[in-house]
Amino acid sequence: MKVPRRLISVFTTAETFLLVSHMNPDGDALGSALALGKALATMGKRVHILNRDPVPDFYGFLPGSRRIRATAPKGVMEGRAVLVLLDCNSPKRTGMDALPHRLSVVIDHHETESGFGDVRWVDPSAAATGVLIYHLLNALQTPLSKDIATNLYAALCLDTGTFRYRNTGAEVLRIGAALVDAGADPAYVAESLYESWSERRFRLLQSTLKTLEMRDGLAMMHVTRAAFRNTGTDEEDTENFSNFPRRITTVALAALLRQRKDGGWKVSLRSKGSLNAARIAEAFGGGGHRNAAGYMTATDLGSAKKALEARYREVSGRQPGHPRPRTRK
Amino acid sequence: MKVPRRLISVFTTAETFLLVSHMNPDGDALGSALALGKALATMGKRVHILNRDPVPDFYGFLPGSRRIRATAPKGVMEGRAVLVLLDCNSPKRTGMDALPHRLSVVIDHHETESGFGDVRWVDPSAAATGVLIYHLLNALQTPLSKDIATNLYAALCLDTGTFRYRNTGAEVLRIGAALVDAGADPAYVAESLYESWSERRFRLLQSTLKTLEMRDGLAMMHVTRAAFRNTGTDEEDTENFSNFPRRITTVALAALLRQRKDGGWKVSLRSKGSLNAARIAEAFGGGGHRNAAGYMTATDLGSAKKALEARYREVSGRQPGHPRPRTRK
Repeated sequence: MKVPRRLISVFTTAETFLLVSHMNPDGDALGSALALGKALATMGKRVHILNRDPVPDFYGFLPGSRRIRATAPKGVMEGRAVLVLLDCNSPKRTGMDALPHRLSVVIDHHETESGFGDVRWVDPSAAATGVLIYHLLNALQTPLSKDIATNLYAALCLDTGTFRYRNTGAEVLRIGAALVDAGADPAYVAESLYESWSERRFRLLQSTLKTLEMRDGLAMMHVTRAAFRNTGTDEEDTENFSNFPRRITTVALAALLRQRKDGGWKVSLRSKGSLNAARIAEAFGGGGHRNAAGYMTATDLGSAKKALEARYREVSGRQPGHPRPRTRK
Repeated sequence: MKVPRRLISVFTTAETFLLVSHMNPDGDALGSALALGKALATMGKRVHILNRDPVPDFYGFLPGSRRIRATAPKGVMEGRAVLVLLDCNSPKRTGMDALPHRLSVVIDHHETESGFGDVRWVDPSAAATGVLIYHLLNALQTPLSKDIATNLYAALCLDTGTFRYRNTGAEVLRIGAALVDAGADPAYVAESLYESWSERRFRLLQSTLKTLEMRDGLAMMHVTRAAFRNTGTDEEDTENFSNFPRRITTVALAALLRQRKDGGWKVSLRSKGSLNAARIAEAFGGGGHRNAAGYMTATDLGSAKKALEARYREVSGRQPGHPRPRTRK
């Protein structure tokens, strides 16, 4: 993977950087920002990492995560820094109003392109933005400390389902191995990501699984405000829930509907194989990747499910009573 | 990893092989046997792969899995073959009575050693028997076909939780990358292993999660014969169920009790970190690895849970009312 020459030059010559990733940040957004931030600090640069939203407790294990702020010091906001958008390619996705800068850089692997950025490196073939940062740090010849390796390893894990999704190739596994050599601990990262649930969160999973409805390959589950209240949980506790019904061989699309405080619903879609979840989400004003997308809707639960089912049938071509593929246990 | 010279010599010179792995075979046992079998066939050898138990539907995707038999042709059983025990190191673990042979070979990574075998390669530091087979095939200079790579990749995935368990190191990831280069498809293997559940199996999971009891780090769930009947499932459908409560940060040991047809209970234990599940299982006449063990008991459910809890408290040192570690969400 070839790192753009201008990108290397910007990181070598500039002195102050403002690293910003998308709102509701995930492990790839956070891990990439933290790894790049630590590397730049090692190079003697001034670095500020911003995010509109606080780091979910879930990601508190990422080294340096406490240094992520919602606002930058005044001097930086006067436009003397290089703005680096990570894991997103438009300022809109950061959810932040003003991000003054003297030069803007974009490092991302998402398909939707906004055209923003004086220096752009957008490569949808990369499994994670963390992969791009790994190559960038190699090109900058900054050593991989244990903290940097852990952040990048977590970024890779998040976006590949720990080497389970379609975007996992030999290169991702090799980078994983190099990061382990540099000090990342696979079991520690996996336990932090997947085995650090509160009992409350597990109770919420139990109650959510009970809501499962299956319709010709569409699996729908929902979480009401009452379910959050009864278990003492909130929205971030539902992360990954939509992956559960994906285990079922006949499921082509898994949807999780979460009731918002204003009464509307936030819908997450996870599809298998070639079914394009983003195409379904776009019909409702949302978007995302082929296998992971989402949108918001202001209707009631019944109408939301009906509309989703109709759109699912259009995109997938599955009709009611369509014979299901043979199941394997 | 150094392959014993005598092992290479046996596989180079002998003509007929009987590959046998343990009863109730898992992905490592099956994948290792199938990969070695295919490689030996390529070398022009006669190979028979035996297992006491049929291949679970679950593993039907492993290339060549239909060629595994419960008995070998008469000529082989007259003792002219080299017997190779894979992923186990005593004939007792195969569950098969007579395995006549002119020479016996053991390739395994389990700790319990029986002393059986004319040529032995038992390396508990290997994450999977599949890792040993990978090195053996390299030493034998047999090319890795796509089918061989897929079997070995599945073996690695099974025994490392797809690169999540403590036994995952840089070497396993590098071997994974080499197997992908040779044609293994990570997403296909992961989907086959983790996303090929029947709806029935998912219903069984829902009903099993409802039985969860938590006691000072011990999580217990159970499956009655009625639960199997009501969902139309059987024991092999519970594979991996005991991993679910492990997600909870306060859980040190997860136990799954499955009622047997004779009314007794089969208990699977999955522990985290340094808690030795095998030491708990041994008290009931069972055994296993540090983080995965099991045993049988003939008592009723209530007594089985009580006895397990008592033994758990002895081994873990956790007493009732012991303050729990702080939870992270």
